[in-house]
Amino acid sequence: MSASAVAGYRFDDADLPASPVTQEELDHLRTTLLFSEADERALRRAWEILRDQVEQILDVWYGFVGSHPHLVAYFSTPEGEPIAGYLAAVRPRFGKWIEDTCTRAYDETWLAYQEEIGLRHTPARKNRTDGVRSVSHIPLRYLIAFIHPITATIRPFLAAQGHSQEEIEAMHQAWFKAVTLQVALWTRPYGPATW
Amino acid sequence: MSASAVAGYRFDDADLPASPVTQEELDHLRTTLLFSEADERALRRAWEILRDQVEQILDVWYGFVGSHPHLVAYFSTPEGEPIAGYLAAVRPRFGKWIEDTCTRAYDETWLAYQEEIGLRHTPARKNRTDGVRSVSHIPLRYLIAFIHPITATIRPFLAAQGHSQEEIEAMHQAWFKAVTLQVALWTRPYGPATW
Repeated sequence: MSASAVAGYRFDDADLPASPVTQEELDHLRTTLLFSEADERALRRAWEILRDQVEQILDVWYGFVGSHPHLVAYFSTPEGEPIAGYLAAVRPRFGKWIEDTCTRAYDETWLAYQEEIGLRHTPARKNRTDGVRSVSHIPLRYLIAFIHPITATIRPFLAAQGHSQEEIEAMHQAWFKAVTLQVALWTRPYGPATW
Repeated sequence: MSASAVAGYRFDDADLPASPVTQEELDHLRTTLLFSEADERALRRAWEILRDQVEQILDVWYGFVGSHPHLVAYFSTPEGEPIAGYLAAVRPRFGKWIEDTCTRAYDETWLAYQEEIGLRHTPARKNRTDGVRSVSHIPLRYLIAFIHPITATIRPFLAAQGHSQEEIEAMHQAWFKAVTLQVALWTRPYGPATW
């Protein structure tokens, strides 16, 4: 997938505003998560395993959301009618997110897009990217709750190429940290004063 | 530790207001976390392993916080002076939290205390329980980030009594879910409108 082929994907878009999150705040979050250079390297290795399985991973995640009406609701009209085009439009961005989580430097460009992703979950910006008439926001509690399924479901994919348990565990822990770090960043627009 | 011996511990306190979180909201969160009755049973078994290690677990967590000035700050005066009595007062409640996470039914009494715990991290209620003059709140991002260290550091304690890898993994996943569930609940007072 090339970036230009994915509608609404704005990583590297120079027009994106800088994140209000400072480098020091990011460093403190990384330290709190015990996120090290070894984790960065583990994520790079993880991508070599995951890159050919992206569609299958998305199938699992979409299957999970699709099987729970209380989750499909966030891809539906306020009246509760699922919007197939919306689900389809988000999917390739979700695929790029897997790649970016594993391969990108967590620098200012990355921070700017994390802020944009966060905003797209809130009333300030949800639905605009895809021009849909859906519910106003993703509740904060679901951003946090998803840390678990998005972490747990990746492990079989990391294990799919016969790596050692130790190596799978290292990649899995790095993934867990990277997901948690991003969710922490995405919640900033929900309440900047106490973030 | 008996409940009455722990200052500020209010689980089972009938004067605590009911949580605004509904049973349906809790059920949806549990479903999103894939939290099952098997997880409840795994947590009960985990407590049998953890109960004699509570002080050592708290030593690890306090060591982690204590070694990072940006974390000690939340147990310090606004000028940055650590408040030893505050750190000491919180510790037995943290111990009870380990026990409650493993052994309690996640019912209305539990929900009411989760709301209270959440509030105690916000400007509405931080510092009051212990009568200290500290900073106004714990930033939301740290509640979320702590999901990882609080999950990762428990594993060696779950493994300390020679259980099978499969059993350790089941208890550890249940713990991960339970911690994530509680953090999701604790964030409600940070922004009820979009929680």
